Amino acid sequence: MPSTASRLNYIKTSPIRRIASLLDEVRRRSDIISFGGGAPSLPPPKEIIDYLVDKLRNDTQKTVGYCGTRGLPELRELISNDLKENYGIEYDPSSEIIITDGGTEGIFLALSSIIEKGDEVIIMDPTYLGYSEAIKLLEGRVRKIPVKVEDGYQPNLEDLKHIISPVTKAFILLSPDNPTGRIIKEEFVKGLVDLAVDNDFWIIYDAAYKYITYDAVNPWVDKYSGARERTITINTFSKEASLPGFRLGYSTGPKEIIDAMEKIKQYVSLAPDTVGQYALLKFYQDGIKEKYLKDIVIPTYKKRRDLMYSLIKEHLPDAKTVKPEGAFYFFVDISHYLELMNRDDEEFANRLLYRKNVIVIPGSHFGDTGRNHIRMTFVSESEERIIEGLRRIGAFVFSYTL
Amino acid sequence: MPSTASRLNYIKTSPIRRIASLLDEVRRRSDIISFGGGAPSLPPPKEIIDYLVDKLRNDTQKTVGYCGTRGLPELRELISNDLKENYGIEYDPSSEIIITDGGTEGIFLALSSIIEKGDEVIIMDPTYLGYSEAIKLLEGRVRKIPVKVEDGYQPNLEDLKHIISPVTKAFILLSPDNPTGRIIKEEFVKGLVDLAVDNDFWIIYDAAYKYITYDAVNPWVDKYSGARERTITINTFSKEASLPGFRLGYSTGPKEIIDAMEKIKQYVSLAPDTVGQYALLKFYQDGIKEKYLKDIVIPTYKKRRDLMYSLIKEHLPDAKTVKPEGAFYFFVDISHYLELMNRDDEEFANRLLYRKNVIVIPGSHFGDTGRNHIRMTFVSESEERIIEGLRRIGAFVFSYTL
Repeated sequence: MPSTASRLNYIKTSPIRRIASLLDEVRRRSDIISFGGGAPSLPPPKEIIDYLVDKLRNDTQKTVGYCGTRGLPELRELISNDLKENYGIEYDPSSEIIITDGGTEGIFLALSSIIEKGDEVIIMDPTYLGYSEAIKLLEGRVRKIPVKVEDGYQPNLEDLKHIISPVTKAFILLSPDNPTGRIIKEEFVKGLVDLAVDNDFWIIYDAAYKYITYDAVNPWVDKYSGARERTITINTFSKEASLPGFRLGYSTGPKEIIDAMEKIKQYVSLAPDTVGQYALLKFYQDGIKEKYLKDIVIPTYKKRRDLMYSLIKEHLPDAKTVKPEGAFYFFVDISHYLELMNRDDEEFANRLLYRKNVIVIPGSHFGDTGRNHIRMTFVSESEERIIEGLRRIGAFVFSYTL
Repeated sequence: MPSTASRLNYIKTSPIRRIASLLDEVRRRSDIISFGGGAPSLPPPKEIIDYLVDKLRNDTQKTVGYCGTRGLPELRELISNDLKENYGIEYDPSSEIIITDGGTEGIFLALSSIIEKGDEVIIMDPTYLGYSEAIKLLEGRVRKIPVKVEDGYQPNLEDLKHIISPVTKAFILLSPDNPTGRIIKEEFVKGLVDLAVDNDFWIIYDAAYKYITYDAVNPWVDKYSGARERTITINTFSKEASLPGFRLGYSTGPKEIIDAMEKIKQYVSLAPDTVGQYALLKFYQDGIKEKYLKDIVIPTYKKRRDLMYSLIKEHLPDAKTVKPEGAFYFFVDISHYLELMNRDDEEFANRLLYRKNVIVIPGSHFGDTGRNHIRMTFVSESEERIIEGLRRIGAFVFSYTL
């Protein structure tokens, strides 16, 4: 066999993806309780499925045909109107919006459009693990600022200032956050934008969970003075429309960047999924999106969040965590228990799965600062199964620390 | 605005993608006859759509949920069985097959897995224009061997031998071919495999049109002695199942390469479209695939091919072309007319669209050897409209060469 490319050595396999594959294989073992990947367990709005079924039946060829690389113009127009009406931000549907294969492709195309070998991209630690690997795949360098449970997982502007260098090319901001559920403070956003202007770097704002907020209001980065021309916002339909299987999202930004992302996308994936885009046309009509989020998604997840919070307090009283203001996850510092058990977070997660059929994600996968933590999503299982899962975790820890 | 990445300067925008976007925008101007992009105009098998509708209605969440990065295990098993039964080639469904976002992502991931900066990849000239741009995007170097209408667009082994160098990393073979419709001769495949073994390079075999053959039998590259361990085969469902909008395909190869492609895919697009994969499960059941290809696709396209061939002879008697043995396209040398018109192929295509509402693709987009040619697909329009389109082209040429 001829040799493979060295870029493969820069990156590591996503543990969450490994779990997704595992779940594919063992889907029928229903006694596995997953607090692992952030897959919504709610069905998408029924109206969307009905609309899509109708399109598939009555306009088959158009619905399963190719579309342009930036996606259906009708969908981009609906998105543009939605952003204007809900956030007061204007993006031209033909030149400043591109439909992508989920948020993941948005990140990849945005980074591909801006970074060169050796350029530095600043991310938080812990953070979504896809960022560092995408940066390294493109031969960029990853710089990190730590965020800690004591600060409510809020980053510190001083840490950011100290890490900025002449080769800083971008900062990636995720809010609401994965893995911590933290919503970024407005003060940090203002400071970040000022630093980006002064040091001429990009802000990649990952708004994957923008609609999934419980208490706090999530700031919309592009609205801050000076941000618009240097912000690329990454969105996905996987979370807000509970449609991850369609692999669709959208990115907004200055025309030049959307042009660049389109140019690269031609040779990465050609065009986005047309079928799912037709389904999403309905998401933006008849108030379906607002109703679905307000009446179903937020109340359901909020209840599960509150439940999981009280269960963590009950079964893991010496763990430290922050009640998430948004997104899907608890990030729990279990140092106390790991010390008693003489295990690290990876061993903890492996044994928990093996012994109790419960999936959690080891915190160290999200960065060095995430060591001795576990991430648990509260959206993939019902309340009943969240109760059962935490009971199992409690029993697991108890059996070790007796 | 901060600066963008230099990789954007290496690549050019695909003219076919520009046309796809244009078509999105003007879809209602039904008087445009498109011999442009190779989009099937046949509907997919009805059974597939029925099956998908049933899945969407009765098993919504699983159907629109995430799947593992390599795709649904059930689909990979069906593909594995299909390859074994139809071609006698064995690929292990769990380790040697990956579902991709169409053939485009297959090519991108395969190249990403094997080439380094400065590595050379040999392609034909003319050929599918995505190859050169994907190679350049990854900082590889493109080398070309010419193929000519006089040789029936068959490449020459001597040309290949002369261009191989110590940094040759791969050869991309597309058969049946785009833009020429040529099916590769077995003799060339044998010689290619021997050269790949002797010089230790990869063969990327793009089998996008493998089932779309009219007269000749398409050789299956992996079956030749020595090829299996150095061949990555790229497949797409866009052409054979008439489902381009789902953006799905699959690649096969040695375990190490499929592992590598999966690793990179995690950070490029996370996972393939789940919904479309469920639809495709049905494609491989109840003999639907064989029946669809044998009873509908091949006869329909063959009739259109024969029709277009006779119309080219009638309306462009001084053009030179080869009746395609497979795929979707005529590649037509119109040097005679361009000389009389004092135009190049790009100007010809632009004016033809402007004056006669007919889309053809300029041959020079497929490589220097493609100059003075046009590519016309015969699968996107009905026979009636093929007749009308060629009539318009004839009138257009006549008006200039009077």
